Amino acid sequence: GAGADNDLYINQAIVFIEDAIRYRSINHRVDSKSLWLYRWYYSRTCQWILGLTITVILALAFIEEPSSLTVTSDVRFRLPAWSPPCGLTESIELLCFLLFLLDVSVKSYLIGWKEFWKNKWLMAYILTLIVSLADWIVSLSFFCKESVRIRRILRPFFLLQNSSMMKKTLKSINSTLPEMASVVLLLAVHLSLFTMFAMLLFARTKDNQQDKEWVVYFRNLPDSLTSLLVLLTTANNPDVMIPAYSKNRAYSIFFILFTVLGNLFLMNLLTAIIYNQFRGYLLKSVQSSLFRRRLGIRAAFEVLSSLKETPASAQQSCVSVGALLQVLQKAEMDSRCKQAIMRTLKMCSCDQLSAAQFQKLFEELDKDAIKQHPPSPEYQSHFMQKMQFAFGHPYFGYLGNVVALANIISICVVLVMDADKQPSERDDFFLGAINCFFILYYLLEMLLKILAMGLKRYLSYPSNRFDGLLTVILLILEIATFSVYGFPHPGWRPEFMGLLSLWDMVRLVNMLIVFRFLRIIPNMKFMALVVTTLLDLVKNLRAFAGILVVVFYAFAITGIMLFKGAVVPLGNTSAANTTHDNGTLQCGTYEQLEYWPNNFDDFAEKCVISWCSAHFQAVLFTASLMYCHVHLICRWAKIYFVAWWLISSVIWVNLFVALLLENFIHKWDRRCQRESLSDIEYQRTVELMFRDVLEEPTEEELMEKLHQHPHLQLCR
Amino acid sequence: GAGADNDLYINQAIVFIEDAIRYRSINHRVDSKSLWLYRWYYSRTCQWILGLTITVILALAFIEEPSSLTVTSDVRFRLPAWSPPCGLTESIELLCFLLFLLDVSVKSYLIGWKEFWKNKWLMAYILTLIVSLADWIVSLSFFCKESVRIRRILRPFFLLQNSSMMKKTLKSINSTLPEMASVVLLLAVHLSLFTMFAMLLFARTKDNQQDKEWVVYFRNLPDSLTSLLVLLTTANNPDVMIPAYSKNRAYSIFFILFTVLGNLFLMNLLTAIIYNQFRGYLLKSVQSSLFRRRLGIRAAFEVLSSLKETPASAQQSCVSVGALLQVLQKAEMDSRCKQAIMRTLKMCSCDQLSAAQFQKLFEELDKDAIKQHPPSPEYQSHFMQKMQFAFGHPYFGYLGNVVALANIISICVVLVMDADKQPSERDDFFLGAINCFFILYYLLEMLLKILAMGLKRYLSYPSNRFDGLLTVILLILEIATFSVYGFPHPGWRPEFMGLLSLWDMVRLVNMLIVFRFLRIIPNMKFMALVVTTLLDLVKNLRAFAGILVVVFYAFAITGIMLFKGAVVPLGNTSAANTTHDNGTLQCGTYEQLEYWPNNFDDFAEKCVISWCSAHFQAVLFTASLMYCHVHLICRWAKIYFVAWWLISSVIWVNLFVALLLENFIHKWDRRCQRESLSDIEYQRTVELMFRDVLEEPTEEELMEKLHQHPHLQLCR
Repeated sequence: GAGADNDLYINQAIVFIEDAIRYRSINHRVDSKSLWLYRWYYSRTCQWILGLTITVILALAFIEEPSSLTVTSDVRFRLPAWSPPCGLTESIELLCFLLFLLDVSVKSYLIGWKEFWKNKWLMAYILTLIVSLADWIVSLSFFCKESVRIRRILRPFFLLQNSSMMKKTLKSINSTLPEMASVVLLLAVHLSLFTMFAMLLFARTKDNQQDKEWVVYFRNLPDSLTSLLVLLTTANNPDVMIPAYSKNRAYSIFFILFTVLGNLFLMNLLTAIIYNQFRGYLLKSVQSSLFRRRLGIRAAFEVLSSLKETPASAQQSCVSVGALLQVLQKAEMDSRCKQAIMRTLKMCSCDQLSAAQFQKLFEELDKDAIKQHPPSPEYQSHFMQKMQFAFGHPYFGYLGNVVALANIISICVVLVMDADKQPSERDDFFLGAINCFFILYYLLEMLLKILAMGLKRYLSYPSNRFDGLLTVILLILEIATFSVYGFPHPGWRPEFMGLLSLWDMVRLVNMLIVFRFLRIIPNMKFMALVVTTLLDLVKNLRAFAGILVVVFYAFAITGIMLFKGAVVPLGNTSAANTTHDNGTLQCGTYEQLEYWPNNFDDFAEKCVISWCSAHFQAVLFTASLMYCHVHLICRWAKIYFVAWWLISSVIWVNLFVALLLENFIHKWDRRCQRESLSDIEYQRTVELMFRDVLEEPTEEELMEKLHQHPHLQLCR
Repeated sequence: GAGADNDLYINQAIVFIEDAIRYRSINHRVDSKSLWLYRWYYSRTCQWILGLTITVILALAFIEEPSSLTVTSDVRFRLPAWSPPCGLTESIELLCFLLFLLDVSVKSYLIGWKEFWKNKWLMAYILTLIVSLADWIVSLSFFCKESVRIRRILRPFFLLQNSSMMKKTLKSINSTLPEMASVVLLLAVHLSLFTMFAMLLFARTKDNQQDKEWVVYFRNLPDSLTSLLVLLTTANNPDVMIPAYSKNRAYSIFFILFTVLGNLFLMNLLTAIIYNQFRGYLLKSVQSSLFRRRLGIRAAFEVLSSLKETPASAQQSCVSVGALLQVLQKAEMDSRCKQAIMRTLKMCSCDQLSAAQFQKLFEELDKDAIKQHPPSPEYQSHFMQKMQFAFGHPYFGYLGNVVALANIISICVVLVMDADKQPSERDDFFLGAINCFFILYYLLEMLLKILAMGLKRYLSYPSNRFDGLLTVILLILEIATFSVYGFPHPGWRPEFMGLLSLWDMVRLVNMLIVFRFLRIIPNMKFMALVVTTLLDLVKNLRAFAGILVVVFYAFAITGIMLFKGAVVPLGNTSAANTTHDNGTLQCGTYEQLEYWPNNFDDFAEKCVISWCSAHFQAVLFTASLMYCHVHLICRWAKIYFVAWWLISSVIWVNLFVALLLENFIHKWDRRCQRESLSDIEYQRTVELMFRDVLEEPTEEELMEKLHQHPHLQLCR
């Protein structure tokens, strides 16, 4: 009937508007039941459960055998970690897989069969699930004793497929690959030509004394390649040059030429290429988000305009205000926006809305939310008013900063004086007394500010919340200290009591005080700009970080599978190769550097290793290679680390720099424009940053896209 | 009289046009004698002599005591270097100073007294000369035995003041300093807060076994600061973390947090800031060059229009073609441009030129020079024509590349096979034979190409010149080898004869073959783009490089003065601190790393050190610090290296990246536009790169500037 039809239209409009708000695609089924399922699927609870499932399955790596649940990861001291009984992690995994199965079936149903076959991501999702389940069955049938678990490497895919941002980012990284590949090829040519040169230059001579360079760095092709690759990462810089340079100064020319060309030119060229490719990236992604939003709103308009209530006589299609109000009440959206739209709607005298009016109404969604702080309390007493003026004044805040600085300096002085003292010689009286004084001041400051501003207004500022929380924690710690150890007095050096020693308590208090000093940041203009840029960047980088996590996870699991147990404590292995005749260790070897905690035995450990080798390139890498001379995993480890270095350090860091440049330059330009408005706190989003350069989609584009909708049949 | 006046005007016009061509300022004296002096001063010979003088005075650092004239700089093996007798370098210096005095007086005279007092650079020049001369006198009166020579540190100033580009660049670096300082301040805050945290976290405990982290890295405030600063340069990355991390995994969080904030965010922020500041730098400098050129031409027009010959009746001022021809004939300029302008002038029917026509005539100067290759010879014989087609075809060039690649691969294979062989076991037959074959092919290729293209056309391509030269050298080497050692045969392993052993000859040939392989570059599109970008960059970077040289020189000389002789070979010093009880060396110390060649004893050495420590930051830096534990120059060395690291690595490398980004992005955009024209070889300059974005100065701006000229009195 007409009523049921109307209900359907209203529901469709609600879903389309929700899609618009969250920048979702509107290409899904639009019948009543599907709409209910769609809203349920995208409800907060459902999405939260899905997110939790992904987190759980990724986090399993820390608990599974080899588990990371030991305090140290040093193979020499580590006790055998607790390993979960067979079946525990496996049953959690099965539960996750079942949830993913549910997820994939709902998703496939909602987009419809026709679209399903076109969607490669969903196909890959199903394939991954099938492979994982098969692997799981194999695992159980071997009673968890099998060595290779493919499903572990596949896990990060679940994270990837769940984020549309990450998929989009992956696509644009993909389109940059050909050019990156050219530069990497150029680097490879550079490296191989110089390797040949080096091998010819530092060939073996008859005089064995002069052969140092050859013996250590250029003994054969793989060694030479490695030496120069590591030089490209600048990790072995003066060392690799020293033996040749010691013979003749002129040899330094070779190394300097190599690094100038490779490191200064080619590596930075990679940055330039990636920056050039990603220059428009943010803008493009914001533009496509805007298009989705406009499309969702237009779709809502179209379905509402086909409601039976509307007079058929109207030439132009239009929407009744009543229907829109009904939709708005049911739609889930930010209450501020909802109220603003309702208000505009009520003020508007007309009864019918045209498409343009309808769009304009929803522009409220794109606007800055101007944050309003609650008002200060109004005191009657003249004295209180004066107090309020004094302690609400910015100068009182500056005074607080000065006191915090004084506290920092006093801690610093005590640290310098106590640096070399034995713990037993240390006298905690001075530090205890001054900290007590400063904490009392902080408490007083907090109370006076609350008095001046009122609790609500006080808490509405993030900097005050940060301050207050730390002050309260400090106070509690201080009271606990005094109740256990008594008040400070000269020669205050009590015995260990309770959970923490006095010394630990004092250290903790000091650390919190140092941390509290960060409150000065918003007071310095440039710092504030930098910090907000960084925070913005973190928001925009989420998709990139996600992709890095995906790659990282796969690498870490592969690393564990390949190299687990490769590091064996000294004594178990024949250490003959790494020691001198008189029993001391040779320099630069794994054993001498005491890299025992760096091994591949568990996931947490692998994360730390990857961090080191990713960012600091080759230090660990060289260490592992030197260690290689003893063991036989050498070649694999080399290839593995070079691949990881390329992906994480070369490509990802450059992506990061590109985004930082993009973000910062936009922000900087904007700062100059908005100087005058700087008092108002904007809750800025990326969308807002680009607002003045964005292009509004035209009506034709929107309608064309709407007519391509696979499930929605528009009347006209 | 009128004739003399006319001569003066003509001369003025000539000088103004020459100024315009070389983008010089026109603010100099314009009377006859001064003009003659001005043309003499800016003549090629004079400028060449001045350049030579600057080179000589800078190069003195290599010869002066401590001289760099030893093969090795290793303090253990080095023989005492030849040191020039007292008075030799000093007399060269005096000669240079006298030339500089002449230079400064001519310059001051030419710009006139009024301008002289406004020109800070000239004042500083005179001051530097006075100080240098005074120091020189002191030096001689001590018979060259004095230890401190201030004039050495001042030398690079002579380089600086002679280049207007460098002065301009310095100005714009100067304007970026406040923002850079903010980020450096932020870095300092970051560093000091984390240092305090670290000192509290890794404090001395009662258990001495657990104290490793404290003992090695965080013993006191300077040590902690150094550890974290070095961590910021990522040189000691996993090492600094290992002892704490070995105790508890959670300590890694501290280090990861520190490096993420410091290294990933703050350091890259510096890049962003510098890039943002220098984004318009190239454009702005090209714009101001254009203004100078237009101004020079306009000035020439104005003086020519006041010639008595021109009819006074003309309302608009204009210039007779005859006068202009006279000026052109006498002016020094590129002959191609001169001919082009003459041609246009003759084709033009008019007798008088307006200002606009005059300017338009000289636009020839801004145009691309399209390089034309001489034509190929035309052969009569049908066979020769076929030959010409075959060997002039690009495919023949590609075949040559394939053969070169095959040669490289064969050398590579031989190198891999021979890598571990003793020199006495090596059989040079195989390599000798194949190289002989390949070199014959190269010769044939060259001859056939010359046949097909004719010698002139062949030589007009740079790639052919490169090819041909290397082929000829290879041929000569090969003939020399055969004449000394006979033809290769199995077991060809002759004794050492003549200048070089057979092995050295073969190595040299191989190196040249590897070098010749670079001819493939222009054949690969992307590589060609990259290489041209790099070449462009080198042109644009000259000013920056010059400033770096200036800073570098001053730093190097200071380093020598401060730390000369600080590195003493083992045995002379008490080595007790760096050895274990059983006599082997402790790891990570200067002695164990054998950094003997790295010392501060002479200038060439200092250059290499600075290169290492500049680019590869802290490896050497740490080494020198560890060495510091023994000696007492520690604190100075620390400050010295940190300053150098900040300037060279942090600031200069970022400047470089900024310019590279700027250049590359312009080039890249342009590549897409000009794809179709890529066959024509342009001799591109920076000016041309920006031509379509440059703004032409308006007539008003030009005239206003002309009226401000301190010496030129325009009639109207």
